[in-house]
Amino acid sequence: MRLTVYLAGEIHSPWREEIKEKAKSLQLPIDFVGPMEDHDRSDAIGEEILGEQPNPIFRDAAASSFNNLRTQVLMQKADLVIALFGEKYKQWNTAMDASAAVSLGKPLILIRPEELHHPLKELSRKSNATVETVNQAIKALAYIFD
Amino acid sequence: MRLTVYLAGEIHSPWREEIKEKAKSLQLPIDFVGPMEDHDRSDAIGEEILGEQPNPIFRDAAASSFNNLRTQVLMQKADLVIALFGEKYKQWNTAMDASAAVSLGKPLILIRPEELHHPLKELSRKSNATVETVNQAIKALAYIFD
Amino acid sequence: MRLTVYLAGEIHSPWREEIKEKAKSLQLPIDFVGPMEDHDRSDAIGEEILGEQPNPIFRDAAASSFNNLRTQVLMQKADLVIALFGEKYKQWNTAMDASAAVSLGKPLILIRPEELHHPLKELSRKSNATVETVNQAIKALAYIFD
Amino acid sequence: MRLTVYLAGEIHSPWREEIKEKAKSLQLPIDFVGPMEDHDRSDAIGEEILGEQPNPIFRDAAASSFNNLRTQVLMQKADLVIALFGEKYKQWNTAMDASAAVSLGKPLILIRPEELHHPLKELSRKSNATVETVNQAIKALAYIFD
Amino acid sequence: MRLTVYLAGEIHSPWREEIKEKAKSLQLPIDFVGPMEDHDRSDAIGEEILGEQPNPIFRDAAASSFNNLRTQVLMQKADLVIALFGEKYKQWNTAMDASAAVSLGKPLILIRPEELHHPLKELSRKSNATVETVNQAIKALAYIFD
Amino acid sequence: MRLTVYLAGEIHSPWREEIKEKAKSLQLPIDFVGPMEDHDRSDAIGEEILGEQPNPIFRDAAASSFNNLRTQVLMQKADLVIALFGEKYKQWNTAMDASAAVSLGKPLILIRPEELHHPLKELSRKSNATVETVNQAIKALAYIFD
Amino acid sequence: MRLTVYLAGEIHSPWREEIKEKAKSLQLPIDFVGPMEDHDRSDAIGEEILGEQPNPIFRDAAASSFNNLRTQVLMQKADLVIALFGEKYKQWNTAMDASAAVSLGKPLILIRPEELHHPLKELSRKSNATVETVNQAIKALAYIFD
Amino acid sequence: MRLTVYLAGEIHSPWREEIKEKAKSLQLPIDFVGPMEDHDRSDAIGEEILGEQPNPIFRDAAASSFNNLRTQVLMQKADLVIALFGEKYKQWNTAMDASAAVSLGKPLILIRPEELHHPLKELSRKSNATVETVNQAIKALAYIFD
Repeated sequence: MRLTVYLAGEIHSPWREEIKEKAKSLQLPIDFVGPMEDHDRSDAIGEEILGEQPNPIFRDAAASSFNNLRTQVLMQKADLVIALFGEKYKQWNTAMDASAAVSLGKPLILIRPEELHHPLKELSRKSNATVETVNQAIKALAYIFD
Repeated sequence: MRLTVYLAGEIHSPWREEIKEKAKSLQLPIDFVGPMEDHDRSDAIGEEILGEQPNPIFRDAAASSFNNLRTQVLMQKADLVIALFGEKYKQWNTAMDASAAVSLGKPLILIRPEELHHPLKELSRKSNATVETVNQAIKALAYIFD
Repeated sequence: MRLTVYLAGEIHSPWREEIKEKAKSLQLPIDFVGPMEDHDRSDAIGEEILGEQPNPIFRDAAASSFNNLRTQVLMQKADLVIALFGEKYKQWNTAMDASAAVSLGKPLILIRPEELHHPLKELSRKSNATVETVNQAIKALAYIFD
Repeated sequence: MRLTVYLAGEIHSPWREEIKEKAKSLQLPIDFVGPMEDHDRSDAIGEEILGEQPNPIFRDAAASSFNNLRTQVLMQKADLVIALFGEKYKQWNTAMDASAAVSLGKPLILIRPEELHHPLKELSRKSNATVETVNQAIKALAYIFD
Repeated sequence: MRLTVYLAGEIHSPWREEIKEKAKSLQLPIDFVGPMEDHDRSDAIGEEILGEQPNPIFRDAAASSFNNLRTQVLMQKADLVIALFGEKYKQWNTAMDASAAVSLGKPLILIRPEELHHPLKELSRKSNATVETVNQAIKALAYIFD
Repeated sequence: MRLTVYLAGEIHSPWREEIKEKAKSLQLPIDFVGPMEDHDRSDAIGEEILGEQPNPIFRDAAASSFNNLRTQVLMQKADLVIALFGEKYKQWNTAMDASAAVSLGKPLILIRPEELHHPLKELSRKSNATVETVNQAIKALAYIFD
Repeated sequence: MRLTVYLAGEIHSPWREEIKEKAKSLQLPIDFVGPMEDHDRSDAIGEEILGEQPNPIFRDAAASSFNNLRTQVLMQKADLVIALFGEKYKQWNTAMDASAAVSLGKPLILIRPEELHHPLKELSRKSNATVETVNQAIKALAYIFD
Repeated sequence: MRLTVYLAGEIHSPWREEIKEKAKSLQLPIDFVGPMEDHDRSDAIGEEILGEQPNPIFRDAAASSFNNLRTQVLMQKADLVIALFGEKYKQWNTAMDASAAVSLGKPLILIRPEELHHPLKELSRKSNATVETVNQAIKALAYIFD
């Protein structure tokens, strides 16, 4: 049995590499998918595909079309979603993806630093489990296969 | 035909009153529902019901149980969801509720200031319509009945 | 038992008035809903709510947001959808609404002139019933209550 | 991870071959499916299977049964739908398939020439992304795997 | 709390009148709906609405369109389905409606004479309850309100 | 806005009366529904409707048909489910009803004495909120309307 | 792309062998599944597993449990259902399985002799296609892969 | 065709080993999944991942998060669920998992000793089949492949 896991959340830190490496070292049969991690390309993908847009709002609208397309395809393939919140940025996409996972019946693990417990309390309560570190999330994944 | 509209978003400004008054003056047949607007009570509802909790994290966990219960009951009653993002706070609950609405097939109107267009571009693309003011949202509601 | 019926299709002929009058004269307990019938307003609703847009494509994108919002709210209220195809226009919205109705499990009556039987054959086969006149559609509605 | 993509839309131009070749040259792990591309056979399939029908309308009804059967089986296998609108024909099947895709939760890419932006504005708004060329659609597919 | 109950099954005996009278005498708050009970009209409804058809098979196809339309609208309104099998006729519509009810999550009561227990054993096992008389079905309805 | 609340759980103590009285004194607009509270009748309902059964197992099978019918009809009407676990009995029906509520997307409040926290920990985690007294459950209901 | 096809219908004639052989000779990539074809074993499976039952009705109830279990597992695996009606027997299981297929969104091909067109008219209208011979059904399957 | 079967129920007896061995000796193409069978680890998994908790209730809450995560992932992979009730323990998790299986449309086999027929009568009636021994459950699995 292999699982597909969608890794939602910030793309400014290398947490996805860490999770993939640990899963590999534990030989967990997991395929990881997730959003475009090159932030500049993620913002530019609308113009990359459609050409120049009239202003920044329409540039963003164009980019979001292709980012949402990617997320929808990959999340529908996923058996489980991990959403990581960091200390910077608004991270509304992370909240959006995590909530979509729950609504679609996908199990959800939330990773967030303890300092964020208050603003994330309702989303945390909707998730299957809330942890503070990537390492704890890996332990939760490994537990499924034990 | 009456509609029920869930008003997700910040509870620190009186935007819900504004929307209700305008709907009333236009005689729109709409019942509005939404989260607990008394912020202190929203944070304290866990201890109000269950008694003192061992620490702030568990206090928050208890509160979130009852806030999520309220939201789930009322959003399931709603024909349409309006989610407002302001310029302060993390507002992850707003993103969570907006995304849940879309996943549940509930039509969604997003209200956000133009300054927030970039971090909200993916959520905006998933909504039915994005506007900048409460007044524009009311016009969208009125259009349904015209 | 009252039914709500969504009337999809062209807004350039007065067929909705005809259907409403006949239902009234037969005292059928039906509430009819449907798209904005003022074509100019339907095309302008984006700018009416959001203000001037940079070009015709974005004007259309803005308008479609509010037209789709209206359709989604009203179709979810409907127990049955009637879609009328006429001899002019591309009428892709009509095909889109009719197909959405079927996918959502809403019973569908198609009204189309016999000349259009060939290009509509697949949509016709997916509908519950295909008729050629408004009068036949009314008879089908009346049959539900007999 | 392989994806299955359903190619809805006109069968009078060789756009499917173009898309398949480009996907192949990019080594995208995609299986393409779609409607019967031999138009005469698509129209004749009812009589091919069931024998001669009493008149053209019933000939069409018979054909549509088997065309819809094929579409339903293949679209349920698909992870993503691409719908192309050209400048000729009524193309109601394309609109029907595109709308069914959205209602079934399948991500949708619309390909249409800019001239058609107005009559397709509502369907465009419901799709994940709207592009103007096959090449842009391929870029969108490739982006999912990057 | 009122319930809507769909009465599927043969239209050649007056069992629906019996069930309605007993429900009335027990003052059960139930609205009963069901198929067209005038058998000749049920068979003729296609031609009544669409005009004469080329042969008996197409006459039947036309009639079935409007009978299925009626059933789909009314069964979607129902909170519970009762399906009665008698000793005559093929009654495939009854089996079809009963099975659709189960698949749609509608509770199902089967009424059948003991002699039919063998050919109905699988359908009986899928129903919520199987009884032998209209009177027993009424008792089951009454039990919901006790 | 009125809510319908299904009260699952033991029928040997008068907790339903307590909850109804408190809701009444608080003027909460709630209709309460639930299982047959006369335990002997609940066990005998199969034979009451179908007549004597060959042995106790079939007597139980017959009774369960009508008890499940009642539960399915009423739970589908409910906006929210409250499940109470007491200190006696196996209460597998309560666990079954609570789990069905969660799977159907119905918000769930669990009432259980603290002594039962360990064996109910997984069900408690799936519920929206877990409380220890009827009075706390009433406060949670009232909070929805505040 | 391989398809799984469930073959519902009578188990007294060798039509399943015919369909499998033709599919094989056409090299169609199809896996066929279906009910227990040994009629005596199908009727006896309850007692085979559970031991002797007190009377024929309970013998049937026991058998139907395992037959329904088998059907539910295999039909959920199926991409398409073919249901064959012959000239003998009541065949309510066939109607039940065909209707379940439609309700579950599984494409359905009905095979029935022309003599049965009248009593099967509503079920025929709900199916994707109705044919008269196994050979025609095979052509319909082959058309999906052409 | 391979099946995945989730084995819900007590983890204090070696019934899962028995079922796996028998399936193996019969060469049934089945992959078995299920809960953590090391009871102490199941209770400690919350603290194993998250660290020490403030009191036994929060220790249990933490453990249940990861146990539910595991169950949700694995049950969604399952084609069929077997739930075994023994004579000891409260076994509310077993009832919860069995009920979730039914609500999710997963076929369910219940294994329980005859002594438990009374308290399990409603859950038994909702299952596809109820048997008394592991051996009977294996026969039911084998019947699917015969």
